[in-house]
Parts: sequence; C-alpha cells; structure tokens
Amino acid sequence: MTSSRTPGDKLLFTPGPLTTSATVKQAMLCDLGSRDGEFLAAIRDVRHGLLQLAGVSQELGYETVPLQGSGTYAIEAVISSAIPTTGKLLVAANGAYGERMAKIAEVHGIAVEVLRFPEASPVETCAIDECLRGDAAITHVAIVHCETTSGVMNPIAQVGEVVAAAGRGYIVDSMSAFGAVPLDVRECRADFLVSSANKCIEGVPGFAFAICRREALASCRGQARSLTLDLEAQWRGLETNGQFRFTPPTHALLAFRQALIELEEEGGVEGRAERYGQNHACLREGMARLGFQEFVPAEHQGPIITSFLYPQDTGFEFERFYDGLNRRGFVIYPGKVTDADCFRIGNIGRLFLSDMEALLTAIAETMEEMGLEAGSAAASE
Amino acid sequence: MTSSRTPGDKLLFTPGPLTTSATVKQAMLCDLGSRDGEFLAAIRDVRHGLLQLAGVSQELGYETVPLQGSGTYAIEAVISSAIPTTGKLLVAANGAYGERMAKIAEVHGIAVEVLRFPEASPVETCAIDECLRGDAAITHVAIVHCETTSGVMNPIAQVGEVVAAAGRGYIVDSMSAFGAVPLDVRECRADFLVSSANKCIEGVPGFAFAICRREALASCRGQARSLTLDLEAQWRGLETNGQFRFTPPTHALLAFRQALIELEEEGGVEGRAERYGQNHACLREGMARLGFQEFVPAEHQGPIITSFLYPQDTGFEFERFYDGLNRRGFVIYPGKVTDADCFRIGNIGRLFLSDMEALLTAIAETMEEMGLEAGSAAASE
Repeated sequence: MTSSRTPGDKLLFTPGPLTTSATVKQAMLCDLGSRDGEFLAAIRDVRHGLLQLAGVSQELGYETVPLQGSGTYAIEAVISSAIPTTGKLLVAANGAYGERMAKIAEVHGIAVEVLRFPEASPVETCAIDECLRGDAAITHVAIVHCETTSGVMNPIAQVGEVVAAAGRGYIVDSMSAFGAVPLDVRECRADFLVSSANKCIEGVPGFAFAICRREALASCRGQARSLTLDLEAQWRGLETNGQFRFTPPTHALLAFRQALIELEEEGGVEGRAERYGQNHACLREGMARLGFQEFVPAEHQGPIITSFLYPQDTGFEFERFYDGLNRRGFVIYPGKVTDADCFRIGNIGRLFLSDMEALLTAIAETMEEMGLEAGSAAASE
Repeated sequence: MTSSRTPGDKLLFTPGPLTTSATVKQAMLCDLGSRDGEFLAAIRDVRHGLLQLAGVSQELGYETVPLQGSGTYAIEAVISSAIPTTGKLLVAANGAYGERMAKIAEVHGIAVEVLRFPEASPVETCAIDECLRGDAAITHVAIVHCETTSGVMNPIAQVGEVVAAAGRGYIVDSMSAFGAVPLDVRECRADFLVSSANKCIEGVPGFAFAICRREALASCRGQARSLTLDLEAQWRGLETNGQFRFTPPTHALLAFRQALIELEEEGGVEGRAERYGQNHACLREGMARLGFQEFVPAEHQGPIITSFLYPQDTGFEFERFYDGLNRRGFVIYPGKVTDADCFRIGNIGRLFLSDMEALLTAIAETMEEMGLEAGSAAASE
C-alpha cells in the first residue's frame, strides 16, 4: 500500500499537513469551475460524506459547513458566529489549542473564562460541571478533542453530557482526531464539531469544516462578527445554490472527495483507527527501546501524536536531530508544551507500519551520528 | 502550448478559478511539511516574486503578505486591519465587489461611505477628490481595479494620485487584474493591493495576498478585529520564522511558485498582457460577428472579462445556452450587473487564441441548436 504515495516525497510525522496518497493528490489534476454542476456535485458528496463519518445525517438535524482557510479559521467562524453579544464562553484548556479558542473570544470582545488543566492530563469533567453550576452567565463551553500540544485525549463525550445537562452550547475542536477515532456527534452532544481537510481524512490543506446541529447553526443568524467567517451565511449560501459564497479551493475539495473514498475503502473510521493504533504502538515501543520517555502518561495519551522528552544527554540538540532525520527523508515536529523540552512525532496520514519502522531506524542512525547511545536517551528523573 | 493542459478538462472562461497549466497542477503532487525548510523556501520565493511583479521590493519599503482563504478573505483582512476604530472608509463603487468592501466595513462597525457610479462606467476621480475635500473624517479610500461585475477597468493610478495628495490611505482590490496588466504599486500609490492565487498569475485557489507598503502595514498593529484575518500579525509571523501562523495550503503554494515561473517564461506581465489582449480581441470580434452586444462601452472595457447582453430573441434562455456550451467542454459565467440581463465570458487563465476560436464555434453551434440565428443576437436598442 505504501507504493500509492508519490515516490521521493519525505514522510511527514507531523500533526498536518500530512502525507497523503498519490491518488488523493492526483485528484487535483483537474480545473473545475467553482459554480459549475460538476463541482457542486463534489461539494454535495463531501458534505454528505462528512455527516456520515460523524454518525449523523440531515434527517437527524445536522449539517456540514465547509469553510475556506485552515482549521483555525473554522474555529474562529464557530466562536464568532455562535456566541451572541450577551453570551459567555467557558474554555476547558490543557494546551495551546484551548488557549487559542480563548484568544479568539477575546479578540471578538466575547466574555470568556478559561478553566486550565495541566498539559499532561485531560480536562476534568467535574471541574467543568462545577464551573457551570457556579456561573449562570456561561452560554457555551469549548474543548479540544485531541490536544496536539501534547497528544492528550480529552473526554469530549463525558464533558458533553455535563454541558447538555446544564443546557449550554458545546463547541468541540476535533481538528486532529476526527476521522481517526470512532465518534457520534449526537452521542457526544456537540453543537459544533470542527475539523480540517488535511488531518485524519487525509486530504490536503485548503479548507476546514464544522459539523453542526442545525438548530444551533440556524440560531447564529446575524451574530457573526465578520463577512467571510460567517458560519450561518456560509451554510445558507450552500443551501440556496449549492455554492460557496466566495471562491472555494476547488482542487483541495476534489482531493478531499477522493480521500473520503479511500477512507471508506480502508474500512471507514474503524479501519483507519486500527492502522493509526498500530502505527502508534510501533512508535511507542520503538522509542522506548531507544530510551525515549513520553511526556504524557500512557493512560491519557491519544493515538494521534506523541510528545517525547529531550534526552538528558548533553549531546542532544533538537535542530541537529531534526536535520539528521530530514536528510533521511523523515519530517518530525518540534514540541509545544510550555513546561518541558519535547519534540513530537505524529503517526497519522498515509503512513504504515513499515514507515514507522523506517523512522525508528533513521532515529537510531541519527542518534549514533550525534554520539547519543541508544537506550540512554531517557531523561533522568 | 495548449497541450500543456490536462486533456479532457473543460475550459474555464470565468473570472476564476481558471484553467491552469498541467505543470502548475503537477507541482501539487508533493506533500511538504508546513514548517519544513523546503516549504519555507517556497514561501520566500512566492513573496519575493510577487513584489517583483508589483514593481517594488523590500528595499523600496514593500512587503507581501499571503493569507489562507479566497480573495475576499484578504480584502476583509486589509479593511479590518488597516482602518482604526476612529477611521472612516470611502468606497468608490461601480459594481458588486466595491459594494462588498463597503459591506465588510459595515460588518466590522467601521464608518463607511459609498460613492456609487454606474456599472458600465469607471469611477470618477474628480468625484472622489471632491468627496475627500468635503469630509475630513475619511481616512482610507478603497477601489476595485477591474470590476468583474461588468468588466470595467477603473483608473487606479489617477485615483491614487488624488488620494495620496489628500494624505489618505489607499486600498486597491486588484483581484482579477494583477498579473494581467503592467502595474507599479508605488506609481499607483496603493498602500494595500490585494489579489488572489487563482487569478491572472494562473495558480490554483487556496490563498490570496496583499502587497503592502511596509509603513502602512506596520501601523495596523493591534487594530485587527479577528485572529485569523490579522494582516499585520500574519506578516510578523512570516518575518519571525518564515512560517504562516496557521496551516497554509502547501499544495496551492507550490502550484503558485510554478505559476510564477511560467509567467516569467511567458515574458512576464507584458507577455501575459499580450496573450490576454489577443484572446480578448478575438472574443469581442467573434461575439460581434455572432450579433452579441457588449454591456460596457468599448473605451471602458478591460481585457479580463466581458459582459454580453442577452439576445432579444425570445428563444434565448441562459440555462440552455450554458448547458449547450458545457456539453461541448466550455464553461462560461452568469452575469452580475444589476440593471441588464447579461452573461460573462472571461479570457484569462491558460487560454490561447485557438481556445477562443473553439469557444466561438461552440457558441455558434449552441445558438443554432437553440434556434437562434447567428447575426441576430443583438439586443434591439
């Protein structure tokens, strides 16, 4: 299966943009008119396919709104469209992406409170519950599904129950988890769940999307703080004539349609979750063998991306490590947690066990090149 | 040269997304890490290449800020970043894209005045001058270079002189003209000139960009009304580490770098202007021969896109006309002017004289199919 990638490309062990299949990229070798019937059919396919992945349908009262730009654009569109001027957002944050949602609220002058948790642990449902009981002004709760800052998975369904019981709106940033873990949007009570084309569906970057409970979406009407990031107007445009309001990334959308087909061929989210799980297990075992220590305790670690502590060995420099792997055709990612020196390795995208093993070999070689002994990489406690 | 396109693709006679070369699309068959050196080099190439096209440089005090999303995203980023809360925008409007700029200002609560002109004529410099003399509160003037609503070209350099003399900021929407007509940003006095990847540089959609006078750009600091559309923060991010702040459309950027190379190979903007000019002349002559009448008087018509009046013949239905051409592999565009029934035909993108001739043949065939006599299409006056 690895042969379906473009030969010669470096492999991307990042949170995205990811390595995609050659056939996904080849779907972009075509120029379609953005208002032509052929393209409008592709939009319909993608919107429909995403609802299916989320375990819902239009009949069940859900809608998909694709939006040009990166995932953060869609997060900003949701926050700045869904929360009325009289509203207040509670962000449960355990990393940079939670903080970013709070920042977005601030920029728009939306009242916001941040409930902070350590970066190596999930957010705590009972603390959120308490907060909601104590502050009737809070109208919406926002949470990150997989915090790629660290790799921690947050209990979005558990939190969703509490939020729903309290009658508040619920916004889930599932950027790097959607498509990688089985999920039912209704079950987790999300009013808005956001992800992006270049994550676990394995498309290319260019747009993001929100899976929305129709009633919550419709109630955004007239509330948006910008023209292009008006989620409800984007939806209304699509419903009116099937078109994006403004020029869509036609090629990225065609690639995404192909990516959805390939996800289906892999056995849907279950099949993909299995591959990612195998990739992740292989990575963790191999890294442990090489002496690397994980930042997040095993019980909180998600199957998407893993933060590894720098080895204590003074011969370790991240830049040299990165470059050594890069020369060998492997792209890894710098760390992002605030209170520890880490680097990150993702295991999502068009990556297979053989790729994980090749990466581990390259890491061993690079360590040797840097004069670091395998097995000695563990940070001393 | 036409063989460089993907065989089987329909030809797009639209304002964009456009027909692009096969080699531009093939540049997308590669996944790069968004923070990897290889991709950062591509960003640098693109930012530098755009300044060159605009006749300026960093040494002359100009900067290029690419931004994820469609052209309208970049327009909104400029307006909502450049105009302070105490500012006031004057929009000189003769079509939907001028009106859209006013709408953006309104959404952000920015004081705005719209000076309206007929859709078939350019905006009038002296009226703008008068307006600026009469209203000291106006801090910025916005104008559309080629109003694709109709196809009219506006005198951006002439207006720029008046705006500069009055000491106001100047925002130019050159979406569908940049790259198609020789232009010196300094000469036309633009502080911010916006265009998009999928227009006359002949890249694919996914991002837009603003060519900015550095001083004007720097003065936007802290003024933006949103996180993702903060033009100055986007620039500062690029200057700090060479990266986009949020996930960039890596594939679209690689396509654009290739498109810049192909523009250079064609003889730069001059070479491209010549081809587009020939395409346009061929289209106008052919359409006149078929009896079609243009909406915009010849002296105001730009070389990008042309609005044609519906024939008076009662047998004409736009949908049938569109479908007939579509079946033959040609995609045209509906009209957008408010006070006349028109359709539009663009002549930009990877289109050559032979394509224009093929389109004209298809139009003649479709007319015959619809029972419209060639030569009889003219609207009676």
